[in-house]
Amino acid sequence: MTTDTFPKGATATATIGGTTVRINGFCKGSGMIAPNMATMLGYVFTDAALPAALLQSLLSETTEVSFNCMTVDGDTSTSDTVLLCATGQAKNAAVTGPSDPALTDFRQALRGVMIDLAKQIARDGEGAQKFVTIDVSGAENNRAARQIGLAIGNSPLVKTALAAGDANWGRIVMAVGKSGEKADRNKLGIAVGGIAITADGGPIPNYNEGPVAEHMKGLEIHIAVDIGLGSGKATVWTCDLTHGYVDINGSYRS
Amino acid sequence: MTTDTFPKGATATATIGGTTVRINGFCKGSGMIAPNMATMLGYVFTDAALPAALLQSLLSETTEVSFNCMTVDGDTSTSDTVLLCATGQAKNAAVTGPSDPALTDFRQALRGVMIDLAKQIARDGEGAQKFVTIDVSGAENNRAARQIGLAIGNSPLVKTALAAGDANWGRIVMAVGKSGEKADRNKLGIAVGGIAITADGGPIPNYNEGPVAEHMKGLEIHIAVDIGLGSGKATVWTCDLTHGYVDINGSYRS
Repeated sequence: MTTDTFPKGATATATIGGTTVRINGFCKGSGMIAPNMATMLGYVFTDAALPAALLQSLLSETTEVSFNCMTVDGDTSTSDTVLLCATGQAKNAAVTGPSDPALTDFRQALRGVMIDLAKQIARDGEGAQKFVTIDVSGAENNRAARQIGLAIGNSPLVKTALAAGDANWGRIVMAVGKSGEKADRNKLGIAVGGIAITADGGPIPNYNEGPVAEHMKGLEIHIAVDIGLGSGKATVWTCDLTHGYVDINGSYRS
Repeated sequence: MTTDTFPKGATATATIGGTTVRINGFCKGSGMIAPNMATMLGYVFTDAALPAALLQSLLSETTEVSFNCMTVDGDTSTSDTVLLCATGQAKNAAVTGPSDPALTDFRQALRGVMIDLAKQIARDGEGAQKFVTIDVSGAENNRAARQIGLAIGNSPLVKTALAAGDANWGRIVMAVGKSGEKADRNKLGIAVGGIAITADGGPIPNYNEGPVAEHMKGLEIHIAVDIGLGSGKATVWTCDLTHGYVDINGSYRS
């Protein structure tokens, strides 16, 4: 059974040593979705001529910033696949390895396709009404930034506030706190929809909730959290927690 | 604002060296509830004559198996209190320390009051329709058992299945897997409502979903998971994830 509501695909072209190659990907998944991939199948194909070990390295690298950076419900599954196949039909010149500059464009295009697919899964999360992007910066390192982003993205209280369009930024602070990563409330900066709410741990003078509430009512929500401690950053994609999620996962057999 | 729907109290008597002492506790809390206590206030009073350091030791010990073993939504808060006060009015004989056998009865009574209070909070979880007890045994150690119990109790997929009265034990297996603790699917035993579903990792011959589904429709759910690896055990209390939770946490301002 699938609870996907739309087909998910992405495409890109890139050049390797002057030869144009194509990348096409598609995937499925909408629930039981958390990093380390969950009930998700992702297939990416290219006509580039690249050896298997190099493809694996590029796939692992781009999975870290795409499929492993999105979450629907924090639940995981064993039936996961992300696969990158290359036919070699483009007959581009051979590359020497993962750090060959001839790969720069391909790597970026692949990353774009992978992120595009991952975002489609978050957007189609079970019961999702809203697509949510969480940008974390200033964390101790990139891993910590991702953990903080996922703690926010998996918090039922944040997700129900998002569903309701409620400008409750205290719940974001709560989720940062429970992430287990280094944070200091006196350095925390939070912005929603590009509107600063706190900066350097203090309230923004004359903070007006109106525009934030307006943004929260929309279907595309942006949350930015600056931890203020280091240079680690990550972007995590998720969705809200709605009545639809409760319905889908309670009544899927009937 | 509180979302508690009923007052929560518990009482017990015990004897210390032949003197009867009383223990009375009350608490509040229903959302933003996860171990390490969350938005919860718990006050326990006794007329026992016990020194502060000993009270602290007894409180810490019993908190581990009570308030730190229940969860509503996995979210946490900074405004937590669990407090144990003793007036000394019972004028019992002095005890020598935490391991004094004269404390056996008091310790057990205190543990009972603490667990009773913790269970009341899980029972009154925001939007909760069902009270869920998760007994984990056979884990590597007690800490691992608790982590596994909490992974099950915090899983949105398990909690929505509980809300729907759906005998989906695969989601319990999933939650064991994502707990991060040692487990082996070939050794796993799962029972719901006292009815074995799998044992030693294999299906029970002639498993009949009917009685399990019947139990899952009730208001008091019991889940037992035997990891089959060691002697660690823990009991965790939680509730289901319902439309009520989404409502309460989306519309609390209106």
